[in-house]
Amino acid sequence: MNDMTQTPEMLIAAMAAKARAASNALTQISDEEKSRGLMLAAQALRDHGDAICRANMQDMENAAERGLSSALLDRLRLDDARIEGTASGVEQVAKLDNPLGEVIDETHRPNGMVMQRVRVPLGVIGIIYESRPNVTADAAALCMRAGNAAILRGGSEAIESNRAIHAAMAEGVSAAGLPTDAIQLVPTTDRAAVGAMLRAAGLIDLIVPRGGKSLVARVQEEARVPVLAHLDGMNTSYVHASANPDMARDLVVNAKMRRTGICGATETVLFDKDFKATKEVIGALIDAGCAVRGDDAIQTIDTRVTAAQDEDWDTEYLDAIITAAQVSGIDEALAHIAAHSSGHTDAIIAEDGAAAERFLNAVDSAIVMWNASTQFADGGEFGLGAEIGISTGRLHARGPVALEGLTTYKWIVRGTGQVRP
Amino acid sequence: MNDMTQTPEMLIAAMAAKARAASNALTQISDEEKSRGLMLAAQALRDHGDAICRANMQDMENAAERGLSSALLDRLRLDDARIEGTASGVEQVAKLDNPLGEVIDETHRPNGMVMQRVRVPLGVIGIIYESRPNVTADAAALCMRAGNAAILRGGSEAIESNRAIHAAMAEGVSAAGLPTDAIQLVPTTDRAAVGAMLRAAGLIDLIVPRGGKSLVARVQEEARVPVLAHLDGMNTSYVHASANPDMARDLVVNAKMRRTGICGATETVLFDKDFKATKEVIGALIDAGCAVRGDDAIQTIDTRVTAAQDEDWDTEYLDAIITAAQVSGIDEALAHIAAHSSGHTDAIIAEDGAAAERFLNAVDSAIVMWNASTQFADGGEFGLGAEIGISTGRLHARGPVALEGLTTYKWIVRGTGQVRP
Repeated sequence: MNDMTQTPEMLIAAMAAKARAASNALTQISDEEKSRGLMLAAQALRDHGDAICRANMQDMENAAERGLSSALLDRLRLDDARIEGTASGVEQVAKLDNPLGEVIDETHRPNGMVMQRVRVPLGVIGIIYESRPNVTADAAALCMRAGNAAILRGGSEAIESNRAIHAAMAEGVSAAGLPTDAIQLVPTTDRAAVGAMLRAAGLIDLIVPRGGKSLVARVQEEARVPVLAHLDGMNTSYVHASANPDMARDLVVNAKMRRTGICGATETVLFDKDFKATKEVIGALIDAGCAVRGDDAIQTIDTRVTAAQDEDWDTEYLDAIITAAQVSGIDEALAHIAAHSSGHTDAIIAEDGAAAERFLNAVDSAIVMWNASTQFADGGEFGLGAEIGISTGRLHARGPVALEGLTTYKWIVRGTGQVRP
Repeated sequence: MNDMTQTPEMLIAAMAAKARAASNALTQISDEEKSRGLMLAAQALRDHGDAICRANMQDMENAAERGLSSALLDRLRLDDARIEGTASGVEQVAKLDNPLGEVIDETHRPNGMVMQRVRVPLGVIGIIYESRPNVTADAAALCMRAGNAAILRGGSEAIESNRAIHAAMAEGVSAAGLPTDAIQLVPTTDRAAVGAMLRAAGLIDLIVPRGGKSLVARVQEEARVPVLAHLDGMNTSYVHASANPDMARDLVVNAKMRRTGICGATETVLFDKDFKATKEVIGALIDAGCAVRGDDAIQTIDTRVTAAQDEDWDTEYLDAIITAAQVSGIDEALAHIAAHSSGHTDAIIAEDGAAAERFLNAVDSAIVMWNASTQFADGGEFGLGAEIGISTGRLHARGPVALEGLTTYKWIVRGTGQVRP
């Protein structure tokens, strides 16, 4: 059977089988060798910078011919600085602590058996992404650092760039004696290959979508393989009656306006009716260029506030727009968040520690914050060194996910001949 | 809209909404109160033992009329001893350590922010089970002890027993002031309700099937909600050249024959060609009443060994039958296990510690054992105090799963007004 008759399912199954073998082979390879492979891969990215730029230029020309938006063209574009950034990102991952082999816990049984839970690689990870070619290197590095094999499926508009980056990564990994099947790029731009990855339960252990909301929604809808992702960052900052007015102003403006397009941006602000400086915070938002849509009480406070519609309370603007409401107290704030939060990041601004602790306990989101900007929702800012994504799912890994989320554990039992009575 | 027009999806969505509210309410209730609720539930099971037995008798009569098998009738049957066993099982769960609130790790950032990962309930858990009515109490107790709400769907043949047990549990839980919606029994025996549970992604956080292989297979095939389960226990015991002959004999006979019907039973034994007592171990298996199906080498060793067919190497017998093969060494043993294991439990019997450690590292199963019987694959034997099931999945929880597997974590960030630069 030749390639012309190979279905997307056959392609993905064959890649996954090679990936499984590579991930098994990686268990016999030391952490030092894996790090060395990534250091060599980073160097190969630099060495082949010209070839990567040429490949990228071809993608850019094709994309321009197809009339792609300037925002998309910017995401697609590579230059020396971006390639250097990608290479140093791979080096940074190479220098992270080894996540494998950690003994999570150990139990000594009365019969003398010793049980350990030991951290091991997850296995085969599928990465489905859009126009940014750097994900080819970033995601592959994180997967390999945790002993996994990666199957990479980038956007069709970035195929030449991805091929060039993948070739450089493979060269480095191979030079360190690591299996190149641990980093595989889906060779076709056929969209059916994405569907085949999403249905490859048992062959691929985890799918990580990296891209916009429509990609994540499609992946979550179709996948039979577990997915690590978040769809929305419908985040709220709640200003408690006890909040320090200056801190509240600085935090709310930063949480909304520092970068409006990231998933950690605050989309709704709730003001306690007994907070005395609501007018100042609203004014600071408007002065910073933010449109404020409010409920009746907030509209009364500042005439520049427009009326929020029902759908506003569930809209992730990713823009310089915020919804603002007044609440009667912490109970109403908690009820609002329970009804509208997407479970990503929610914050309380308060001097009253008891109120803050109650909020931290009661809000059921991946990240809950006290007196901090929701814009900190990021693996790097959390000290994880890198990030494969942020998960709003409740199983396996929650919030910012880096190396540990790309591992699992096994039980190792050491006996001395015990039989079960 | 009345009940006659309520679809299974509407029923499950309504139950899940009540369950979510109950699980949120449980976060505000102390561990002591949850334990007390379970102790009172155990007492209510005893107090209503007669009513439970009467309900069970009705199920038994209906089942006998429908001509159900004696094995199924035995699983369905309740008596005073079984009810006492169920009640004391609930008490045991009430006495387990609180799994919630544990600070998994804590990071102090240079900017002064402190991040903690804190263990919290998973949320809403669906339990789908067959004829054993005790699961109604066991599973509900484990879910509640970890702060979760349970939606219970037992076998239609056990509906009266399950209703009576559920009523007793609800009485105890309610007497302790806990929300009774935390333990809900699906009121209908309509099989479509199972499908609705399996599709309730976002409403139910985890499905745990408890029952035979056909139930687990259906659940794994249809579910859009994550599933915690194992389908097969295709377990291997590998007798290394260095194994102590007496230990090898005792372990292999116990691993296969102690109870042949449990998922931890060994189904294949591999003998190293340099192991000197293969004949004695095979003889001991046959003497213990086990049929041995072997490859050519094993057939030569004992004429009572019959020829194994291709499918034998992938068959979970759950019976007094074992497949036996000779391997040239640890590499061939590892390759056999990689090809045939279901990832449940695999063991090496060896005095050579280096060989054993290599096996423990290389075998990619939920449980790997050295010099112990695979029959120990059980949450109780692992010191977990109880078990909701054994998972061969790679995400979230692997191997025997008890309270910790019914939790997740959230990130709690405490700042002092930090804005992101």
